[in-house]
Amino acid sequence: MESLHDLSRLSLNQITTNSWSVREAVEGCVRAGIPSLGLWRDKVREYGLANSKRLITDAGLTVSSLCRGGWFPASTLAERRARIDDNRRAIEEAAELGTQTLVLVCGPAPDRNIAAARSMVEEAISILIPDALAYGIKLGIEPLHPMFAGDRSVIVMLAQANQLVERFQSEVVGVVIDVYHVWWDPDVVTQIQRAAGHILGFHVSDWPISLPDTLMGRGMMGDGIIDLRHLRTQVDAAGYTGPIEVEIFNRTIWDTPGDITLALMTQRYLEYV
Amino acid sequence: MESLHDLSRLSLNQITTNSWSVREAVEGCVRAGIPSLGLWRDKVREYGLANSKRLITDAGLTVSSLCRGGWFPASTLAERRARIDDNRRAIEEAAELGTQTLVLVCGPAPDRNIAAARSMVEEAISILIPDALAYGIKLGIEPLHPMFAGDRSVIVMLAQANQLVERFQSEVVGVVIDVYHVWWDPDVVTQIQRAAGHILGFHVSDWPISLPDTLMGRGMMGDGIIDLRHLRTQVDAAGYTGPIEVEIFNRTIWDTPGDITLALMTQRYLEYV
Repeated sequence: MESLHDLSRLSLNQITTNSWSVREAVEGCVRAGIPSLGLWRDKVREYGLANSKRLITDAGLTVSSLCRGGWFPASTLAERRARIDDNRRAIEEAAELGTQTLVLVCGPAPDRNIAAARSMVEEAISILIPDALAYGIKLGIEPLHPMFAGDRSVIVMLAQANQLVERFQSEVVGVVIDVYHVWWDPDVVTQIQRAAGHILGFHVSDWPISLPDTLMGRGMMGDGIIDLRHLRTQVDAAGYTGPIEVEIFNRTIWDTPGDITLALMTQRYLEYV
Repeated sequence: MESLHDLSRLSLNQITTNSWSVREAVEGCVRAGIPSLGLWRDKVREYGLANSKRLITDAGLTVSSLCRGGWFPASTLAERRARIDDNRRAIEEAAELGTQTLVLVCGPAPDRNIAAARSMVEEAISILIPDALAYGIKLGIEPLHPMFAGDRSVIVMLAQANQLVERFQSEVVGVVIDVYHVWWDPDVVTQIQRAAGHILGFHVSDWPISLPDTLMGRGMMGDGIIDLRHLRTQVDAAGYTGPIEVEIFNRTIWDTPGDITLALMTQRYLEYV
């Protein structure tokens, strides 16, 4: 049985070792005893889709998710359609890679109308549901921290993501919960409970007391103030048994040799998550 | 009758012209036709409380608010008491300055327990209510943006502030709404309506598409993507008729001569707010 104290659910989100290729990440995970990898499309493209798939399968790893689809709102219909087409390609890539989940970072508004942009997100996901069904891929709506409302996502609360999921009533739409994005929410425990049955991913990192940067500010688990064990316990209690990805955008960590990062994240995962 | 197109409700929050003393800010407001000033305690201390009061009264200005009380959570009872005492002094200063509102920035948690810190905030405000009543001062709970949850405020949503106000059921407790802190909230319109009758202040600035910095990132109205007129209309519709403070932490603006800033903010206020 999986306990809090083994690595069976740990996954390396590839961005954490941003300088590594797919091959290096796979080899690093094997050396570190990490069974799963969250991939990024640009890195998969560099290494080749079929090559990536073969390498991962041969190494005995699983792909926890593909990052990322989304980025739906745009000022013209033509551009919105182009983005939906790109998401269709992402769904195909996810299926080819053998992962269950495509992570959606929904994108910012093209103008001052954030409500309209939120409607565009809803419309785009509804259009993609048949594609996801056809390929057996689940769409994981990841609410980002509200500090990204201007440049990355108009979906900024788990409550919003849950509401979208409930409206669609589709088995292929769920949420991805990242502690960095939701830890501050006074309603987070209730919203994790509400997400029971449609949690498609759980991402961990940490929040330094004073954030040095919005995108690159997150830290290694244990280097910040998020009560990670508390949130992980809530997510487990909501019935989520899938991979727990370590996803860290951080220049210092990116500049650290990957094997050292993996050793540290493994230790911190056992200690704090 | 006050329209959208005059300066009768405009107030300069002193931090916007951070290099100016109280005297310079008062004289600048008079030159620019701005009738009201939001003061900061440290600047008032530098110039002297009685001197500040006399200067402002003689100039015919009003004091829209005093920044700031709050910063309640601490790891020891002694430290929490010391902070409550400091808030008592802030209430006295606010009364002496002739403003109605003390702005509360509630402070971060001393550890990983954000829920406990939120209880400390509630307890501290309840202790301060008799003091506020005695001095005729209102306590304006200002929810900060969730990106400040680690270092400045565990109160990060207007819904939270409203809930506190409703629990206290006291005429001296209300909310201060700052567009920079709440614009991203999918529930902001409903929460502004819920705040009707206890809105004690309204702060404006703007949110650049990509935030260059959390604290110093905000911009002049019109230089970002917040639909300011929409939010102002909602706040007006909720019955708020008080001052509208321009509060901008921004190095470039701080390095600009104050009179130029005041001319620009007046123009942008008329155009965007």
